[in-house]
Amino acid sequence: MAATFAVATQAEPVRIELAERSYPIFIGAGLLRAPEPWAWLPQAAAAVIVSNVTVAPLYAQRLQARLRGRYPAVHTVVLPDGEQHKNWSTLNRIFDTLLQQHCDRKTVLIALGGGVVGDITGFAAASYMRGVPYVQVPTTLLAQVDSSVGGKTAINHPLGKNMIGAFHQPRLVVCDLDTLRSLPARELSAGLAEVIKYGPIADMAFFDWIEANLDALVARVPTALAGAVRRCCEIKAAVVGRDERESGLRAILNFGHTFGHAIEAGLGYGEWLHGEAVGCGMVMAATLSQRLGGVDAAFVQRLTRLLRAAGLPVKGPRLADNNAGRYLELMRVDKKADGGKLRYVVLEQPGRAALRDAPDALVREVIDACCA
Amino acid sequence: MAATFAVATQAEPVRIELAERSYPIFIGAGLLRAPEPWAWLPQAAAAVIVSNVTVAPLYAQRLQARLRGRYPAVHTVVLPDGEQHKNWSTLNRIFDTLLQQHCDRKTVLIALGGGVVGDITGFAAASYMRGVPYVQVPTTLLAQVDSSVGGKTAINHPLGKNMIGAFHQPRLVVCDLDTLRSLPARELSAGLAEVIKYGPIADMAFFDWIEANLDALVARVPTALAGAVRRCCEIKAAVVGRDERESGLRAILNFGHTFGHAIEAGLGYGEWLHGEAVGCGMVMAATLSQRLGGVDAAFVQRLTRLLRAAGLPVKGPRLADNNAGRYLELMRVDKKADGGKLRYVVLEQPGRAALRDAPDALVREVIDACCA
Repeated sequence: MAATFAVATQAEPVRIELAERSYPIFIGAGLLRAPEPWAWLPQAAAAVIVSNVTVAPLYAQRLQARLRGRYPAVHTVVLPDGEQHKNWSTLNRIFDTLLQQHCDRKTVLIALGGGVVGDITGFAAASYMRGVPYVQVPTTLLAQVDSSVGGKTAINHPLGKNMIGAFHQPRLVVCDLDTLRSLPARELSAGLAEVIKYGPIADMAFFDWIEANLDALVARVPTALAGAVRRCCEIKAAVVGRDERESGLRAILNFGHTFGHAIEAGLGYGEWLHGEAVGCGMVMAATLSQRLGGVDAAFVQRLTRLLRAAGLPVKGPRLADNNAGRYLELMRVDKKADGGKLRYVVLEQPGRAALRDAPDALVREVIDACCA
Repeated sequence: MAATFAVATQAEPVRIELAERSYPIFIGAGLLRAPEPWAWLPQAAAAVIVSNVTVAPLYAQRLQARLRGRYPAVHTVVLPDGEQHKNWSTLNRIFDTLLQQHCDRKTVLIALGGGVVGDITGFAAASYMRGVPYVQVPTTLLAQVDSSVGGKTAINHPLGKNMIGAFHQPRLVVCDLDTLRSLPARELSAGLAEVIKYGPIADMAFFDWIEANLDALVARVPTALAGAVRRCCEIKAAVVGRDERESGLRAILNFGHTFGHAIEAGLGYGEWLHGEAVGCGMVMAATLSQRLGGVDAAFVQRLTRLLRAAGLPVKGPRLADNNAGRYLELMRVDKKADGGKLRYVVLEQPGRAALRDAPDALVREVIDACCA
């Protein structure tokens, strides 16, 4: 699959090609201060920055300065921080502000923060007055390589993660690598889980590169981060461009996620970070792939070693006495279950993933083998 | 505009042409018992009927019988009745059921009821797992001629009507005219307001027909109802087919609605029926059109007379001491306001509508002249 991706120079934005919904992803250091990416902002009478209590004090002023010349009114909504706030009541705070400020249907929402801020803001934009434009300014590695690209937006429901949402593409994504300097180490690791993911599913040459550059990535060397974010966005752009609404191919981006969501739901959202759960989920999914004959034990060990080196947990938590049974129960509620039938993103070989059925008994074995 | 609409025979469904989102509208008596329309249902493991406490006891069993042969599981959610329940908490009852029943992303939602049920169910379908298919089975005249066709879905926010929603087209609309027999007289009149609307904006020959058949419509003669519903759906199909997301032409369907929404919001949702507010709003919009030179006083009187004969109020309620000021304030929050600038659907001539600006002072005069 790797050979089909175009390689762009550092200066050019990565483009998501979706006909009239196409948009650029700018990646680089200092972009919150650079004029270039912001020329892509849609015109409107007002822009509303949505951020959280952690990120807003660091970067909101810089972003406001960029927007003030462009919009007659710039408002800011500051949400609480954390996955446990990715719910209706937080979403409604955005709607409250939009309506109190008499924002019309051209108003541009701008998500400044990690995946939670991006997902909530995107869904607010998808549903305010049946749809207004929005822009992603992801400030975590996870959001830069995954959640802010591709138009998936959602909030959680007490009975399931990301159960209420919409496909709604942003008009522009700006990844300022400087914002990653303030990221806690644990969140950097969680982001690396999604970076690593792109190797097994699409590009083993990139996997080799990550292995070779892991120390530089953990040390946040800008050129290393830029290379990782760019390649992830290129791969995601190619996948999303061919399957915007996840009818098939796009599901491969969920490698590790079905198991990972069960971990998040089973422990309670926010206990483990999403990337941590996905990292563990990838070990499970790779082990399942091995049992199904797609990869060998050495590959599973290699992936596990890289995840561990990135600072990620590689053993799943035990959920209740009937551990594997509880995992299966939680996975059945997941969106990927189709007619009650679970399907798994597995590796057909290193660098190529596909959606497959697997017998419950085999999955139970895999889960129990991968839990602490 | 009238000449551009194809005339279908009674037996054929009206088709909304939106490429891969096209769908048929079946109109006739006894359709809840007829097999034909239901052949269009999408395949799935489960269907969920969403209805309310008033409609479910009358028709849910009949609909369940039609669906049982088709879906392994058929669930029913019964919501409270009324515009005041068109909110997040009611919407969430649908999500609760969908998740408790482990409904997957192919699950078909079926809205059985009036506009409120249709709008909430449509938005639930738009956002559950980022979109599942749904079917409209409208049981009020208003829903049959307007809200169930065209894919606009929404819930209300305390600060504005229909502020949170999505464009999400149904897969099928089934208008069983038998269900109109149980409709309270006041709601039939409210539906006639939207029927009458299609005359001034698109088809004066239809307006003549309504005048000639008003007694039969009020008496619920099936052939008269069938003719009215069909023609309204044909006109709406043509408009929506050319402007799915209300970027221009589609706005003409909102004739009377900007004023009407102010009435509903000003009195509190549910005080006046939507159709009643729209009826009054059309008198205001027609009066504004007269002041702008599009129609003459005789036309405004003719429209007013027909609305009154349909059992509708034709004088707006006074809202607060500064009546017209309060109307304007409420209208500015409305979705149609663009950058704080209000635009009005006005008649350029009988049978043709357009979106226009109008000076506040003129609008104030019109409002005060049209209020009790």
